[in-house]
Amino acid sequence: MALITYQNQMDIDFGAIQKIGAALKKNGITRPLICTDKGIIASGIYDALRLALPNEITATLFDETPGNPTEIAVNDAVKLYKSNSCDGVIAIGGGSSIDLGKGVALKTTHEGPIVNWSATNGGREKIGFVPPIIAIPTTAGTGSEVGGGSVIVTEDGQKVVIASPNLLPKLAICDPELTLGLPKHLTAATGMDAMAHCIEAYLTPVVNPPAAAIGLDGLERVVKYLKRAVDDGQDRDARWNMMMAASEGAMAFAKGLGAVHSMSHAVGALPELQAHHGTLNAVLLPTVLRFNADHVGDKYARLRQAMGLEEGADISDWISKFNSSLGLPANLAQMGVTDEMIPALAVHCMTDACHFTNPVQPTVKEYEEMYRESLGTI
Amino acid sequence: MALITYQNQMDIDFGAIQKIGAALKKNGITRPLICTDKGIIASGIYDALRLALPNEITATLFDETPGNPTEIAVNDAVKLYKSNSCDGVIAIGGGSSIDLGKGVALKTTHEGPIVNWSATNGGREKIGFVPPIIAIPTTAGTGSEVGGGSVIVTEDGQKVVIASPNLLPKLAICDPELTLGLPKHLTAATGMDAMAHCIEAYLTPVVNPPAAAIGLDGLERVVKYLKRAVDDGQDRDARWNMMMAASEGAMAFAKGLGAVHSMSHAVGALPELQAHHGTLNAVLLPTVLRFNADHVGDKYARLRQAMGLEEGADISDWISKFNSSLGLPANLAQMGVTDEMIPALAVHCMTDACHFTNPVQPTVKEYEEMYRESLGTI
Repeated sequence: MALITYQNQMDIDFGAIQKIGAALKKNGITRPLICTDKGIIASGIYDALRLALPNEITATLFDETPGNPTEIAVNDAVKLYKSNSCDGVIAIGGGSSIDLGKGVALKTTHEGPIVNWSATNGGREKIGFVPPIIAIPTTAGTGSEVGGGSVIVTEDGQKVVIASPNLLPKLAICDPELTLGLPKHLTAATGMDAMAHCIEAYLTPVVNPPAAAIGLDGLERVVKYLKRAVDDGQDRDARWNMMMAASEGAMAFAKGLGAVHSMSHAVGALPELQAHHGTLNAVLLPTVLRFNADHVGDKYARLRQAMGLEEGADISDWISKFNSSLGLPANLAQMGVTDEMIPALAVHCMTDACHFTNPVQPTVKEYEEMYRESLGTI
Repeated sequence: MALITYQNQMDIDFGAIQKIGAALKKNGITRPLICTDKGIIASGIYDALRLALPNEITATLFDETPGNPTEIAVNDAVKLYKSNSCDGVIAIGGGSSIDLGKGVALKTTHEGPIVNWSATNGGREKIGFVPPIIAIPTTAGTGSEVGGGSVIVTEDGQKVVIASPNLLPKLAICDPELTLGLPKHLTAATGMDAMAHCIEAYLTPVVNPPAAAIGLDGLERVVKYLKRAVDDGQDRDARWNMMMAASEGAMAFAKGLGAVHSMSHAVGALPELQAHHGTLNAVLLPTVLRFNADHVGDKYARLRQAMGLEEGADISDWISKFNSSLGLPANLAQMGVTDEMIPALAVHCMTDACHFTNPVQPTVKEYEEMYRESLGTI
């Protein structure tokens, strides 16, 4: 049992989903809208939540969360929220369901299109009261459950980031039991998302020693436990530690992220690829770490220490081999990226928020070179 | 510049005191009560604060904080708060001024004696709205600026702990500039308080990996920078890092503390000794670490790593030598403790909150033995 309070509260434990009743009561929620997707229904996880809900709770289900949450889906969910007089949100699922839940909470009390409330439009200062959100992650990667940010795709295909302390879930119920059935490839890909958060957050020049320390701790857990969780999904110790690592990754990226994420966001915005965010991060990490090597002081020594690597070991090579051992793609070509896409992708990177907190800002040409290297065709 | 947000906000930077105007505005404070002590007035630090306050702010000064904050002083300050229609608290000073400020904020909105709101009387659940507190630490040790707890001595000499998220300062303004003039002995003693927080928090069996990671990071800083700060008070790098370590120590002890603190609290409650809390912790650490050695798994290896010690090095011996190099007392006898006091002290420990989160609970006899060892007469 561990009740962890920092910016928000995280309750991590096998069976923690049983705390949902107390969490709803504490936050004055009697008529929650449950935001999730069809996969969570099919997996039986939704039934576990239903059984845990106290009888006096009147819940409404929205299970149409797309792979990448869209404003259209948010609007549909808000309609359902209002017509059922809901008074709070339970977001259960991967990052998509939790991000959608934040969008829903926002739009119940904030008029107009979501872009009006985006981070780049001063949303962080403008966003006021939103109804309470309880987040229940079912993957161990995104860490959205302990963050106040959300990415929503607008009707014109734009990826909009909304972020505010008011969008922070009041409680993250982290029940590793819910991840025991997560398939190998999703375990691997979401786990590498957590690793990318931990490493990139640690490497940003932003000064935040507590977040840096948390990132290194999360990294150590990913290295120790991800392969175990992939090899044996029923390894409870590995599942607990991966869930912790995922939340730690998100706590760490209070420090910002870097070029792995700017490059991954650019590819992720291509609707024709539907590329998985965590998988992209896994594939891009080795190249970006090679690029950053001369701009990080002695930080790689500390990364090696956290990863349990020998002094002087090549972190990029190690991650490439680790990816391969997890059954992840070896390069971007295997994910559908082609040479022709690269110039536009590189330009896209230059305005991504994560670009600005990389240890050094790559030029368009340098992004192109990194994409080419990651493509695996040179 | 680093704006760090977890449970509360910390703004750490040389010159951060200039942020006081923005902090007051953000929290709707126009008529603050400034809680501090005569030492802060004499040192010139109060003048620095006065100069930083915007002209439109009407501040009232309470500078009668005792070495250990008392309920009598709290009541005096509350009277001043009310008669001047104050609407918030600025607590500037060491742990005493910040703890007093929390007591003042509490009693402006909560009737009756402070013991009614103590942690042992269910205060954590009962404490409601209190006016906003801005904390400005001038030592690097207590970490009270990032915590929601406070220790107040009641009129009958009882040490009462009040604790609530509502008592958390809205912002900790951590300006290492304010610590440049801190005398050597206070730098050493408060710095060792931070070390004790980091070590004891890490060793508790409470599961909170982010807090553990933060504690280890703080410990590393104390070992690297405390001697430098003691040797040269003007070493800005050392002062910045000690201020960070102190806040990290308090963030870490969300995990609880251990027998160093239960023993230190017992001695600290003896009015005839007026023993300094941080100094007591420094002197008690080696003995308690020897006692705990068989109950901590492989945690000492991790402590050694954070401290930069050789594998297998004796942590207790190292700390004893470190204390000596900082000019701190070698034992409790030098602090006025006598053999006759020990039985009552040992009994006192058994009900201290920190007793229960030590890796293993010492018996009264074991506490007596530890006191005897720390006395330095055996």
